[in-house]
Amino acid sequence: MPEIEPIRWRDTHLELLDQTLLPREQRWLAVARCDQAIAAVREMRVRGAPAIGVTAGYAMALAARETPDAPMPRWLAELTEAAARIAAARPTAVNLGWAVERSLGVARQCATPTEARERLLAEAERMRAEDVAMNRAIAAFGEPLVPAHGGVLTHCNTGALATAGIGTALGVIRGAWEAGKRPAVFHTETRPWLQGARLTAWEFQQLGIPAQLIVDSAAAALMRRGEITSVIVGADRIAANGDTANKIGTYGLAVLAHAHGIPFQVAAPFSSIDLRIATGDAIAIEERPAHEVTRIAGQAIAPDGVAARNPVFDVTPARLIAAIVTERGVARPPYVESLRALAGRPAVAT
Amino acid sequence: MPEIEPIRWRDTHLELLDQTLLPREQRWLAVARCDQAIAAVREMRVRGAPAIGVTAGYAMALAARETPDAPMPRWLAELTEAAARIAAARPTAVNLGWAVERSLGVARQCATPTEARERLLAEAERMRAEDVAMNRAIAAFGEPLVPAHGGVLTHCNTGALATAGIGTALGVIRGAWEAGKRPAVFHTETRPWLQGARLTAWEFQQLGIPAQLIVDSAAAALMRRGEITSVIVGADRIAANGDTANKIGTYGLAVLAHAHGIPFQVAAPFSSIDLRIATGDAIAIEERPAHEVTRIAGQAIAPDGVAARNPVFDVTPARLIAAIVTERGVARPPYVESLRALAGRPAVAT
Repeated sequence: MPEIEPIRWRDTHLELLDQTLLPREQRWLAVARCDQAIAAVREMRVRGAPAIGVTAGYAMALAARETPDAPMPRWLAELTEAAARIAAARPTAVNLGWAVERSLGVARQCATPTEARERLLAEAERMRAEDVAMNRAIAAFGEPLVPAHGGVLTHCNTGALATAGIGTALGVIRGAWEAGKRPAVFHTETRPWLQGARLTAWEFQQLGIPAQLIVDSAAAALMRRGEITSVIVGADRIAANGDTANKIGTYGLAVLAHAHGIPFQVAAPFSSIDLRIATGDAIAIEERPAHEVTRIAGQAIAPDGVAARNPVFDVTPARLIAAIVTERGVARPPYVESLRALAGRPAVAT
Repeated sequence: MPEIEPIRWRDTHLELLDQTLLPREQRWLAVARCDQAIAAVREMRVRGAPAIGVTAGYAMALAARETPDAPMPRWLAELTEAAARIAAARPTAVNLGWAVERSLGVARQCATPTEARERLLAEAERMRAEDVAMNRAIAAFGEPLVPAHGGVLTHCNTGALATAGIGTALGVIRGAWEAGKRPAVFHTETRPWLQGARLTAWEFQQLGIPAQLIVDSAAAALMRRGEITSVIVGADRIAANGDTANKIGTYGLAVLAHAHGIPFQVAAPFSSIDLRIATGDAIAIEERPAHEVTRIAGQAIAPDGVAARNPVFDVTPARLIAAIVTERGVARPPYVESLRALAGRPAVAT
């Protein structure tokens, strides 16, 4: 299958496939400075928790290049400031903070800024390669959960575009397809950003997997008719008890799946699991500007001056989740135990 | 409060407020022929079950004018052909067939085409006036169901624009507002046609009722947070057992409301209740073209060639519905009895 690689390093700078322009246009955004990387994350030119984690790794490498030579303690203090700005680019995904911490840990082992600059770039490259390898492992562990027949639904975009390649939940569906399964594949359009209509539809086309687009609110009717028999989604952050923050609408799909006796499953890299937080109540939910709801592709769809609420994530309680697929294996309820057990397993080697 | 009257007769022709252009533009569509009325219904320039019922009444009056003089049996046979075309303009709403039958009944009592032409126009005017009066009665019966505090959610557009005036579910919220209640008011955008973002937002603005627009998939999260404590929607067709066909997404909201212990209520004129069909299984669900999902306001949002499914209604089983508000009173479960009891009550006088 054709591989989509949305994040790539080009000698002197990072290139990101601009996801605000897909599917109309495939344009690569040149990112030569740390602040450009932060802006790209904030403006959702790159999105998806794993993808913004990898981007954060490269942003740290760019920050290291921009921080002038100084004695290591002062140099590290300046890099730590940049790290804080990168981590704050978006509030919900744990991957930003995770990537930044990992890079800082590497920098602290270095004797000189020169050494740190080299090693931070290598670390970013390693994060990218690891992400692809992890996603292959997620696909392999998750593929048995996809029904051979019936219909599988996914939400938002969790494909190669949301990661460094392959994808998480979309990667699992791809894995099932490569294994010869032929379920009907449904995906939501995912308002307000239309990641499903724009990005997931494009990826399934690129992969040659026939898929059907539906408006978000049509999922319930297709479950009732028996056309959708399984749901798999990604995650932005998972608490120690399995509560999962993901794209707005995920929680509703989980309630609907439960009401129809349909398994609801999550696929995410282990780095999305934040064992430091006990439950989903501790997850900060980003509310974005109203104009993302009142305008589509720059065009107003609502009258001027309308008030809109725009929470972009929601939290699905663990009791509604049948399985959490990671690159270390599949966790089942009760997640407090199963996630802790996976934490003890080694990460996938690249 | 300012009254919105989307359907009006002008001496020689019908005028419809073109709902495909709102809220950007308030343009009146002149409808001088029966076929133009059918096209307006099919193209959703007028939509909402009660509004298309009233439009069908005027379409019958126009058809009567276009049918050349002939002996009554032959004249009636020709009018009946036009009636069949009007009734088939959209498949789900019962009001089309109901209005057409009512007009045919009047025509059959007439001695000459001339008399029938006059009486069919008078009948259409009566349907319009009755609809407004019914909606006032629905608002009065339904107002006590709206919480004084908390938050009420509605879906699609069920206001004056969906009727001849006042509205059904939106009219109930308006009634509560006029009674001095101040709940938070939420409404979905209602993809794919965005009736909520375009029309309901516009109506609440016109009425001066502060309301908050959300994407369809955000309802679940706001229920979980306790911001939404009540749901009220309209209906396109209600079976004898209370099963209710309404805009796609209604069924999902009903399941979500049930899961959160929130009352889910339906407001509709008694003419939306089809006692001839026992359950919702017998209701034909319209599937409309894929381009309504893949394009927004003429602009492509998905890649070319994407497959999309576009069921525009769903059926909510009666067990999820706490109350059905009509102009004859409020029906409660079990609906087989309560709807039959309401059928025995007199209709509202105009």
